[in-house]
Amino acid sequence: MAALCRWVRGMRLWRPSLGRLRGRSSAASEPLTVRRQQEGVRQIILNNPKKRNALSLAMLHSLRQDILQDLESKELRVIIIAAEGPVFSSGHDLKELSSTQNREYHTKVFETCAEVMMLLQSAPVPVIAKINGLATAAGCQLVASCDIAVASEISRFATPGVNVGLFCSTPAVALGRSVPKKVALEMLFTGEPISAHDALLHGLLSKVVPEAKLEEETVKIAHKICETSRSIVALGKATFYQQMAQGLGDAYKMTSEVMVDNLMLKDGQEGLDAFLQKRKPVWSH
Amino acid sequence: MAALCRWVRGMRLWRPSLGRLRGRSSAASEPLTVRRQQEGVRQIILNNPKKRNALSLAMLHSLRQDILQDLESKELRVIIIAAEGPVFSSGHDLKELSSTQNREYHTKVFETCAEVMMLLQSAPVPVIAKINGLATAAGCQLVASCDIAVASEISRFATPGVNVGLFCSTPAVALGRSVPKKVALEMLFTGEPISAHDALLHGLLSKVVPEAKLEEETVKIAHKICETSRSIVALGKATFYQQMAQGLGDAYKMTSEVMVDNLMLKDGQEGLDAFLQKRKPVWSH
Amino acid sequence: MAALCRWVRGMRLWRPSLGRLRGRSSAASEPLTVRRQQEGVRQIILNNPKKRNALSLAMLHSLRQDILQDLESKELRVIIIAAEGPVFSSGHDLKELSSTQNREYHTKVFETCAEVMMLLQSAPVPVIAKINGLATAAGCQLVASCDIAVASEISRFATPGVNVGLFCSTPAVALGRSVPKKVALEMLFTGEPISAHDALLHGLLSKVVPEAKLEEETVKIAHKICETSRSIVALGKATFYQQMAQGLGDAYKMTSEVMVDNLMLKDGQEGLDAFLQKRKPVWSH
Repeated sequence: MAALCRWVRGMRLWRPSLGRLRGRSSAASEPLTVRRQQEGVRQIILNNPKKRNALSLAMLHSLRQDILQDLESKELRVIIIAAEGPVFSSGHDLKELSSTQNREYHTKVFETCAEVMMLLQSAPVPVIAKINGLATAAGCQLVASCDIAVASEISRFATPGVNVGLFCSTPAVALGRSVPKKVALEMLFTGEPISAHDALLHGLLSKVVPEAKLEEETVKIAHKICETSRSIVALGKATFYQQMAQGLGDAYKMTSEVMVDNLMLKDGQEGLDAFLQKRKPVWSH
Repeated sequence: MAALCRWVRGMRLWRPSLGRLRGRSSAASEPLTVRRQQEGVRQIILNNPKKRNALSLAMLHSLRQDILQDLESKELRVIIIAAEGPVFSSGHDLKELSSTQNREYHTKVFETCAEVMMLLQSAPVPVIAKINGLATAAGCQLVASCDIAVASEISRFATPGVNVGLFCSTPAVALGRSVPKKVALEMLFTGEPISAHDALLHGLLSKVVPEAKLEEETVKIAHKICETSRSIVALGKATFYQQMAQGLGDAYKMTSEVMVDNLMLKDGQEGLDAFLQKRKPVWSH
Repeated sequence: MAALCRWVRGMRLWRPSLGRLRGRSSAASEPLTVRRQQEGVRQIILNNPKKRNALSLAMLHSLRQDILQDLESKELRVIIIAAEGPVFSSGHDLKELSSTQNREYHTKVFETCAEVMMLLQSAPVPVIAKINGLATAAGCQLVASCDIAVASEISRFATPGVNVGLFCSTPAVALGRSVPKKVALEMLFTGEPISAHDALLHGLLSKVVPEAKLEEETVKIAHKICETSRSIVALGKATFYQQMAQGLGDAYKMTSEVMVDNLMLKDGQEGLDAFLQKRKPVWSH
C-alpha cells in the first residue's frame, strides 16, 4: 500500500509537469510522447494534443521506442498508454498519406503502425490503454490492440476513415477481433462513434469509470499486476495469444505443457509454497 | 438533406402501395419479394406474410435475384432487407423439406440458402436487415448474415428447428459467428426466442429502436452510407471479411497493402484532398 | 408437465438426502461427486465443499466417470453439473501441484482436466452448468466449457492463478473462447472476480437468475431439452462444434449436408410429419 501511495502521489506530480511542458513555446524540443516509470509502472503519454495525438510516423516511432526501452527489465511490470488533451488519438496523420508522399512512404506508415500494434501483444508485460476522450481510426485500433482498456464515461470510439475515402481496413483488424461483426461493420460503414458504455458492452473495453476515477481505477489494475511475478505474467500473456490462434485440441495440448513448465519456474514453485505455507510469496521475477 | 427528405417521403409512399398489393386477390401474380430503389437505397421486402415469409426455394430465388439485379451499378449504394407482416421470416418452408421431396431437392434448398447468405457478404454494398417482428431458423440466419441489423424493440429471434426434429445446423453457422457459444447453444437446444434487447447485448444486432423509429433509424444508417464512396466501401467490405478469416500477422500484412491501394484509388485521393482542403469530397464511385 | 412436476419434486428430495450425506462423519466413503438421474436429467454434484470442490485428480476421475456412465443410453437426455456449498469449484487442488509431486503427475493432472473439459463438448447430450457461488481457475474453466450455464446473481467468476504463481493458461483456453479478449486478460492478469451480471454481459453465462429461482430456471431448460429428440440434438451439438472450427464456406458445405442427413433420420421425418399434421411428435430417439 505504501508503494501504491507513493506511486499515486507520483502520478499526481506528473500533471503539473506536463502542464509546464505544454506551457513552453511549441519548440521542436516538445516530445511527441512522454515516458515516466515508477514502481514498475511505465506510463507512456501521447503528447501532441494540438495535432489530436495523430499517429504520425514520428509519433509511432516515439511510441515504439518508449515501449521497447528496457522492455526486458525486471523493473518494468506494466505499461499504461494514455494521452494529453481531449482526444486520445485521431489515428494516422492524413498529411502523411496524401499524394505528396509516395507509395513507399505510405507503405512504411502502415507497416510501422501494424508493427507497433503487434508489439503491444508480444510485449512481455501487460499493456493497458487509459482513454479519456475520443479515439478514432488507428487511435481506436490502438485501444483495441492493448491487453486491457479502461475508459472514462465521456470517451467515444469511431473508425471514420470512410468519410475521407480511406476505409479503416487496418483498424478493422483489431476492431473486428474485439467487437461483434454487426457492431464493427456499422462503425466502419458509417464512421459514427459509439459511446464508452457501448464499447464496454461489445468488448472493446475492460472497464468504464467516471472521469474523476479514471486514474485511480487504472492505477488499481496496474498495482494489482505489480503484486504478481513478472516471469509468470510474461509466460501467461504469450501463451494466451498463442493458444487463441489454435484449435481447441491443440490449445489444450500446448497449454497443458505450459502449465507443467510454469510449475517448474522458480516463481511457480515459490507461489505454491507460499500459498501452502499461508505466507506472502517473494517473487524473483 | 433534401435527398434524404425525398427518400423518406418515398418510403412513406411504399406502404399504401404494398397495402394495395395485399388488397388484391391472392393471385399468382403476387410477388414473393418487392424491390424498390431510390437515391441509392434498394429495399427488398419479403412479401409473403400469409406464409410468414417462409424462405421457400422460390422465395430464395426471388431474394437472390433482387440482390443480384444491377448489383455492380453505381446507382446502388446499400441494400435493406425488410419484411411485410408481423413475422420477418420463419425460415425454410417445411413442406419443401418433407419426404414428398427427394434428397436432391432438399440439397438444392440448403445449398441455395447458403449461397444467398454468403452473397450478402460478398455483395459490394452494405446489406442492412430491418426487423420488426419474429425471425426464426433460416430467418434468424438471414439476420445474422447481414452486415448490419436494426430491429424494433418487439422483435424476437429463435432457432426452433429442434422442436420439429430438424436441428438448425445451417442457421447455427451464422448465429454461432454472431453471438457467444453459451447463447447460441441455449437457443439451438431449447428453441426458445430471445428478445431484441438480448440480441443486441449478445451481438446479433447493431441497434434496437422503438417500433415507431425503426424506419427513421434504418434510413439514417443507409443515408450515411450513401454519403461515402461506393468503391471505397466495396474495397473495405471485401477486405473486412477476408482479413477476419486470417491470423493476426497475415491480416495486417494484407490490410496494410490494401490501405496503400486505397490511397491510390481516385476516391481515395479525392477524399484526402477534400479533407486537407477543408471541402466536401466529390466521389466518382 | 406431469413429468416435470415429478422431476421437480424429485429435485427437492435430493437436498435433504445430500444434507444427510454431509451430516455423516467425514468418512473415506463420502463420494466426491454425487450422480442422480431422473426423467432423462442427470445431475452431477461436486460434493467436496470442505475442499471448495477442488478439481483434484480424484475429483476429475469421479466427474469423468459420472459423465461417461451410460452416456449413450436413450434414458439420458441432459447433464447438469452443480455443486454443494458456497463454492462451485476452486479449480485444481494446489497440493497436487506442489513439488512433492513429480512432473509426470502434474502432466497427468492437466491432461485429465483438459480431457474432461473436451468431453463436455463431445458428449452427445447438452451439458448445463448450474452455478450458485464462486467458480475460480479450473472451476471457471468448467463453467466456460459447458454448453449452457445458468448462475444465481450472487455467483462470481475468477482466474486467480497468477496470485499463486500459476497463470491460468488452461482455464484461459475456455475463458478466451467465451468472453472478449479485454475481459479475459483483465481477469487473467489481476485475478479479480467478475460478477454474474458481467459474466452474462460478456458471454460466459447463458442466464442469470435470483438464487431462489436457480433450480427452477435450470430445470426449465433441461425439461425443454427432454421434449426434443435425442438423436437430433446429438447430431446438432456435434455439428455445431465442428462447423465453428471451420471457415464460412466449408461450414456451410458441411452443415448443408448435415441438414439433408437430418431430414433422413427417423426423428427428422417424424418431426416434420407431426408438424405438417399438426400433432405432437413421437420421438424414437
